Amino acid sequence: MDLDALENTCRKGPLHLVYTMPNFQNPTGITTDQPHRERLLDICSRFGVPLLEDAFEEEMKYSGRVVLPVKSMDTGHRVIYCGTFSKVLFPGARVGWLAAHPECIRRLAVLRRYGELSPPTLLQAALARFCSEGHYERHISRMHRVYRKRMQTALAALKRSISPEWAAWTQPAGGYLIWLSMAPSPPTDWEKILASEKVSAAPGNIFYSSEPAGVHFRLSISSLDEEEIEEGIYRLRRAFGKVYERKG
Amino acid sequence: MDLDALENTCRKGPLHLVYTMPNFQNPTGITTDQPHRERLLDICSRFGVPLLEDAFEEEMKYSGRVVLPVKSMDTGHRVIYCGTFSKVLFPGARVGWLAAHPECIRRLAVLRRYGELSPPTLLQAALARFCSEGHYERHISRMHRVYRKRMQTALAALKRSISPEWAAWTQPAGGYLIWLSMAPSPPTDWEKILASEKVSAAPGNIFYSSEPAGVHFRLSISSLDEEEIEEGIYRLRRAFGKVYERKG
Repeated sequence: MDLDALENTCRKGPLHLVYTMPNFQNPTGITTDQPHRERLLDICSRFGVPLLEDAFEEEMKYSGRVVLPVKSMDTGHRVIYCGTFSKVLFPGARVGWLAAHPECIRRLAVLRRYGELSPPTLLQAALARFCSEGHYERHISRMHRVYRKRMQTALAALKRSISPEWAAWTQPAGGYLIWLSMAPSPPTDWEKILASEKVSAAPGNIFYSSEPAGVHFRLSISSLDEEEIEEGIYRLRRAFGKVYERKG
Repeated sequence: MDLDALENTCRKGPLHLVYTMPNFQNPTGITTDQPHRERLLDICSRFGVPLLEDAFEEEMKYSGRVVLPVKSMDTGHRVIYCGTFSKVLFPGARVGWLAAHPECIRRLAVLRRYGELSPPTLLQAALARFCSEGHYERHISRMHRVYRKRMQTALAALKRSISPEWAAWTQPAGGYLIWLSMAPSPPTDWEKILASEKVSAAPGNIFYSSEPAGVHFRLSISSLDEEEIEEGIYRLRRAFGKVYERKG
């Protein structure tokens, strides 16, 4: 998040909520550092704006230094912190958690009742037992091993295959996502070339509210093994080669 | 549902959807009969209106003659039929089903993806096994025995205790709900009197979009055993006695 832009917006008039994904942000995979988090909280505190911290992949920090949640510095009850089992366990888990001021939780619980009347109590009970018996901790360790290796494989393959003249990409310290930006002004038929090499990646423009500058992709390692990741990046290399070498 | 009123409304202009609960309607507990269902489907067919049949308690027919779902007569793919595990099993089940034209289901599935991305797959799998192993059928039989007895207890206690001069009520053939209508023009302090006898029942006016004529209650047997039902109706009798005998 561009904090100068946020501060300017706050100065213009009251905001109701600031929403942030500080870890492995979707779609970029970026994790903000400690000074960024402190300043974000400071801005929200000064302008009286609640901060919703979406820690949807908090548990997927599998490399590098651990940065603490914004919530951990929140002495003024400014932050609503939420997490979920859906990313680390499986999408159908449909159970998450909140850390916030008790009055805030009470009000959100009332709102939730309007939406669904009864929460998924059976799943909640099953997941509570899964955690209390230590399976969740063990599962996270396993996930870290698996995804650290996949992410290393992806980043190494990108470095080996994709020329810095063709594209730049993020270096996520966790999570599943890499954000790849093509070099400025690719030839107009780049989409056709990628399709001809059987490359399909989430197009970056769907993550913008207006048309972005440049061409971006969100690469995901969540449902591919190392061999598939290598194969995908190999195809990307062939496609980018065709796109950019023809250009020169 | 007042089918003359529906037909008049259809004549005035196109409707997008008709919603109905043909069995043990919430809040009245009323079940519509075969001619009513045939005419409802006929009106929807003639005016080209889709009919959403909410069969939320279809499985709770525990006495009297079985009336078939409107969907069973739907040769023209006019009806979207839906059911749920939440009423017969437990509220946190959060899994239901649809019977409709495949194209209608395909479109609804797309809409659902917007709302929640991933369905509760673990619960779906658990419930699929619960059904395929025959537990669901056995559970329904057990529920029928339990609730048939509770409903009989409630209706017998009402008949024994509440004078027809005080109130009238429905005679549900299944489900959990009885709709009780107080005799016209009760004295203005009836609420205070009911409270003084420690009677609390879902007030009928919350089920109307505007202020209803008369005073109604929704009595529910879903979470009370026979002794509690008897006690509740005994208190109702005492309260109604105070309300109406003072009046005379």
